[in-house]
Amino acid sequence: MFIIQGSARERGNTEQLTELLTEGLDVTTIRLREYEIEQIVDKRHAPEGFEPIEGELRTIVEQMLEHDTLVFATPLYWYGMSGSMKVFIDRWSQCLRDEQLQFKERMKGKKVYLVVVGGPNAKMTGLAFVQQFRHICEFMGMSFEGWIIGRGSKPGDVLEDKQTIAEVQQLNLQFRQLQS
Amino acid sequence: MFIIQGSARERGNTEQLTELLTEGLDVTTIRLREYEIEQIVDKRHAPEGFEPIEGELRTIVEQMLEHDTLVFATPLYWYGMSGSMKVFIDRWSQCLRDEQLQFKERMKGKKVYLVVVGGPNAKMTGLAFVQQFRHICEFMGMSFEGWIIGRGSKPGDVLEDKQTIAEVQQLNLQFRQLQS
Amino acid sequence: MFIIQGSARERGNTEQLTELLTEGLDVTTIRLREYEIEQIVDKRHAPEGFEPIEGELRTIVEQMLEHDTLVFATPLYWYGMSGSMKVFIDRWSQCLRDEQLQFKERMKGKKVYLVVVGGPNAKMTGLAFVQQFRHICEFMGMSFEGWIIGRGSKPGDVLEDKQTIAEVQQLNLQFRQLQS
Amino acid sequence: MFIIQGSARERGNTEQLTELLTEGLDVTTIRLREYEIEQIVDKRHAPEGFEPIEGELRTIVEQMLEHDTLVFATPLYWYGMSGSMKVFIDRWSQCLRDEQLQFKERMKGKKVYLVVVGGPNAKMTGLAFVQQFRHICEFMGMSFEGWIIGRGSKPGDVLEDKQTIAEVQQLNLQFRQLQS
Repeated sequence: MFIIQGSARERGNTEQLTELLTEGLDVTTIRLREYEIEQIVDKRHAPEGFEPIEGELRTIVEQMLEHDTLVFATPLYWYGMSGSMKVFIDRWSQCLRDEQLQFKERMKGKKVYLVVVGGPNAKMTGLAFVQQFRHICEFMGMSFEGWIIGRGSKPGDVLEDKQTIAEVQQLNLQFRQLQS
Repeated sequence: MFIIQGSARERGNTEQLTELLTEGLDVTTIRLREYEIEQIVDKRHAPEGFEPIEGELRTIVEQMLEHDTLVFATPLYWYGMSGSMKVFIDRWSQCLRDEQLQFKERMKGKKVYLVVVGGPNAKMTGLAFVQQFRHICEFMGMSFEGWIIGRGSKPGDVLEDKQTIAEVQQLNLQFRQLQS
Repeated sequence: MFIIQGSARERGNTEQLTELLTEGLDVTTIRLREYEIEQIVDKRHAPEGFEPIEGELRTIVEQMLEHDTLVFATPLYWYGMSGSMKVFIDRWSQCLRDEQLQFKERMKGKKVYLVVVGGPNAKMTGLAFVQQFRHICEFMGMSFEGWIIGRGSKPGDVLEDKQTIAEVQQLNLQFRQLQS
Repeated sequence: MFIIQGSARERGNTEQLTELLTEGLDVTTIRLREYEIEQIVDKRHAPEGFEPIEGELRTIVEQMLEHDTLVFATPLYWYGMSGSMKVFIDRWSQCLRDEQLQFKERMKGKKVYLVVVGGPNAKMTGLAFVQQFRHICEFMGMSFEGWIIGRGSKPGDVLEDKQTIAEVQQLNLQFRQLQS
């Protein structure tokens, strides 16, 4: 299981909820805030085409491609994913054109979960983001297995969102049964 | 009228559609790709709080605050706004905490239009993004006046999307009547 | 707590899930399938206006108005509420114009929950319906407190949807604490 | 081209907008309000199964099956289709099980358009309904070609919604070119 952590803040609610979800499981986590991923330069129609994926980004992408289950974790910033996660996913357009990666072939069929933490109305106002993510999964041929939307603002708040915690614990149980 | 152009590509479909929309009007345009706006560092709960908005970002924000009508133009990248537009909007969280700017007070009531260009199904798959934008407008107290979703991939394609062009021309006519 | 049961089937998944949610609580239930509520005749702009609400429909509406918390329970039929629930809610346009009822004033502030059961992808494909319901609540000034989407086709299936059952039990616990 | 008119009102905005869309074209229209289609009785899991489709409903369904292009026209009632249209579509669950009809095979591939008229914010608040309709089309294998959302309350209002009228006229032009 590979966690792509899009939170800009250390030990914030998103990280805490993700930890609960993956407790006792064998996971690899990358925190996007620790990398400086640059904005994509759109060369879809430039004669020279896109450059190959290199550097840190290539390392992250290669790791992601080696796992069957991906968890995308992000705070809800302005009703969408964090900027660092968006910049990462925008670069997938370049990944798709780096033949060595075989990006689409290898992403296809991966199981995807989404963990989101937003404000008090996030279960409602986060749905547009869930829809967006569903489109992303459909385009890539990934299987969007489920999502969790927690509510919290100050660090630790999300642990008080009992309905969400009950869901997360149930999902953690299912994950444990699969890994054992 | 202030255009915030989020396209990563010069003279792409998004820019062409925006030009049609604003033809004959008095507009100011900034292209986000010409600035290096950095990802927000989330200091909502850090003891020192956010730093004030400075440099190029401050210039853009000040300009935006001086206009009554804003047009956000972006290609649909991965079913959402471009990374550069997301990074810009994420920084609004910092703007909100820069007392000098009086960001929320001055953004309130602005008229907002959204111009999006995506692939052949964009009129459908772009709706989640329209919803997200609606939430953004509601939060800021801005009036979301309308949106245009054009379809096109290769530069110039969008001009063949006649239903959209008809809409854009009608909207341009309304804008001209207001400015005259 | 007042349950408006929109299921067309006795003891189907929707009823079973609703029972779990309300176990041990003091509730009143009406099953829309036991009434013959007629389609609204739209007289918004007819000179004579709408007729007053009468008969069985008036009885249901009066009961509904007397409760503070409403649970709308429906199978997901064609990605929306059941026809019998839609016909009932369409009649609210008439209720709004029956001055004796003071419909909007008395609906305002009510706490609303939605219980939905659909097929295997219902957690995703049911979101458009959740959005619709949210609009309904906003229009009426009701507080949309939450929703549950269970998955199941054959009677009893929903009890195997463990993530949903965990959510429902947690919510039931919260309800019990409020009623005691 | 077959028009399924779901409006409850004669010569209301929905009918007027549909007429503009289909002006000069060869169309067949049925008005659901002129039929008494009963709610479905859900017998998916009853031992005897569903009864065959009979009477007026069968006549409408047979006609629908003979056309390649369907236009569903409905006012936005409570942010969804009218009750009479919902009751009609709910009955499709029964059509699917009437072997003589070969319902799914014959609906597959049909081109579908949606015409909706709602209040001043309908272009936004009608999107959940568009999503629902998209799900319906995907399930049936129909091709959801486009939709129009007009704004209007009093009869005739929609003709003042110039952006929508421009779209409708453009679409009408495309239809004429196809039929000639």
